Amino acid sequence: MQLTKISLAAPYLLYLGDVPDLHHAKTGAGIAHWRPEHCAGQMRLPNCPVDLGLPEMTLQDAAAAGVKTVIVGVAPMGGAIPDHWIPQLIRLAAAGFDIAAGMHMKLADMPDLVAAASKSGAKLIDVRVPPKGIPVGTGRLRSGKRVLMVGTDCAVGKKYSALALHRELERRDIKSTFRATGQTGIMIAGEGIPIDAVVADFISGAAEQLSPDNDDDHWDVIEGQGSLLNPSYSGVSLGLLHGSQPNAIVLCHDAMRMEIDGCGGDYPIPELDEVIDDALRMARLIRKQCFCAGVSVNTSQMDDFHRDAYLSRLQSELGIPCVDPVATGMTPIANFLLKFAP
Amino acid sequence: MQLTKISLAAPYLLYLGDVPDLHHAKTGAGIAHWRPEHCAGQMRLPNCPVDLGLPEMTLQDAAAAGVKTVIVGVAPMGGAIPDHWIPQLIRLAAAGFDIAAGMHMKLADMPDLVAAASKSGAKLIDVRVPPKGIPVGTGRLRSGKRVLMVGTDCAVGKKYSALALHRELERRDIKSTFRATGQTGIMIAGEGIPIDAVVADFISGAAEQLSPDNDDDHWDVIEGQGSLLNPSYSGVSLGLLHGSQPNAIVLCHDAMRMEIDGCGGDYPIPELDEVIDDALRMARLIRKQCFCAGVSVNTSQMDDFHRDAYLSRLQSELGIPCVDPVATGMTPIANFLLKFAP
Repeated sequence: MQLTKISLAAPYLLYLGDVPDLHHAKTGAGIAHWRPEHCAGQMRLPNCPVDLGLPEMTLQDAAAAGVKTVIVGVAPMGGAIPDHWIPQLIRLAAAGFDIAAGMHMKLADMPDLVAAASKSGAKLIDVRVPPKGIPVGTGRLRSGKRVLMVGTDCAVGKKYSALALHRELERRDIKSTFRATGQTGIMIAGEGIPIDAVVADFISGAAEQLSPDNDDDHWDVIEGQGSLLNPSYSGVSLGLLHGSQPNAIVLCHDAMRMEIDGCGGDYPIPELDEVIDDALRMARLIRKQCFCAGVSVNTSQMDDFHRDAYLSRLQSELGIPCVDPVATGMTPIANFLLKFAP
Repeated sequence: MQLTKISLAAPYLLYLGDVPDLHHAKTGAGIAHWRPEHCAGQMRLPNCPVDLGLPEMTLQDAAAAGVKTVIVGVAPMGGAIPDHWIPQLIRLAAAGFDIAAGMHMKLADMPDLVAAASKSGAKLIDVRVPPKGIPVGTGRLRSGKRVLMVGTDCAVGKKYSALALHRELERRDIKSTFRATGQTGIMIAGEGIPIDAVVADFISGAAEQLSPDNDDDHWDVIEGQGSLLNPSYSGVSLGLLHGSQPNAIVLCHDAMRMEIDGCGGDYPIPELDEVIDDALRMARLIRKQCFCAGVSVNTSQMDDFHRDAYLSRLQSELGIPCVDPVATGMTPIANFLLKFAP
């Protein structure tokens, strides 16, 4: 049977090369932050200014620590691995470590790396490349519970919100799984499907594969993609919404985002109650009882005083928990979710 | 520059092989019905029971008639061209005719055909394979007017309705173009993009390419795909809706369809006013003035008496023209469209 999900074997060695700053190593930083237990160490070239605080490892250290996968945890300029990183990656592949990356330039298109991996039996895993064999969605309702992050736009904190909500559920010993739909999320989760890279006919089928039948008291916390409001990516978002058939959604927003990004200012973001209403109408085509468990807002540009005022006003307008997942935490949303999910 | 649209050169020779019945030659029949002026003739194997009423042609006849493209206008069992058809297709490709097909088995995967075409310079055109170089959608509002067919489900007459509406506009000397989004539509139009075969991130970008800027008084009549209600394909439908940024939609429905097809009966089709309302809410995220110009219903299973009663009741409930595109025609919808489009 073909895998219909990408899967990375832990523990990981995070490869940073000589990436110029932490911004370009966001993926690695995210993995180290959310899954420290999977990160055995980091490997860097001389003079790399970025340090994720993990044990520094040589190839021999990594082998001794039982590392299974080397994750290229950076987003280099131009989406390609710099030439001077390649010899080290080839040595790692030749030593049998799987190599995973999420760049535009594929590992599978680097002949020397492919040769080394094929000789040692290591896998090269391009997390932007969807697995083969994804079926068309069926709409069959699955067992278990699901909560999906939906956004007012791209890059408003859907991945962070999902991870924070998942952590909050875990803290309460509630059975739950974070389900990744984008490249960084997949590297953090160690598995997932890059939903926006799937052929259009199979979007909801991919989402169905991603959160299969589960125990009745198990929650899948599903990373969102794009936005129903974003004219570039709304198809991805609706296919993911329908395939996820969520019991609840969480609206993710950036308080500074006044209009849809990248569309030249033609698309102001509507009032959040309208956004929630539209999303629920679409969600309820598949699962009639779907509700919104709260709003998770990036308010990092506000001081505490303005944040409190903003979130309080929003919460009294909408009548559901409104939080900043970093500054105030996901506890109220988790409470609301668990209280009202049937 | 790479083509971002499939394009077939007319005139056509419709190749039918020895297809067993008209049902399996629906594509060819559609081309002959809607674009007789592009169809120079038909070519069949001995004992082919299907006759599209076009001039019978040999390879020499086709060359003399200036045929540019041979269209395999059939849907063979299993999606593959039968072995005994291949020698004739190879001779046609070797003689320099482009070959177009829309089957699951690709022409590009038939080595002898590829060799013959490459030697003669003929093109092999798989209309299920999207063109390369489709960009991400931008949401930029384009000039010209657009009307998109939206469906209560798959296979409810969206292509037929679009073609009939386009013909009605042409009859009135209104500038208009039929825009094809599926394989049969592409063969009829001679161009288009198979929207459901595009990678998810590029659905709306493909739709934007398909109906570019145009004269202010020009109408693009756009073939729909899937349905916002269909859990398997809703992502395709929303991406197409947003990329098409229609001024108006026409709802297409099959009067016998009580529930979404292929989903095990879990999804009854809602009242049509709700379906229209949902579609307009989504459409108006991009173009605020979008309206529904009518409902086009396949009532072929009804007698005249029941059809009249059904369409009258629907029209009085919805307050917009409700027609059967075959039995009663698209005139009322064209009238409504032209009267209320700003």
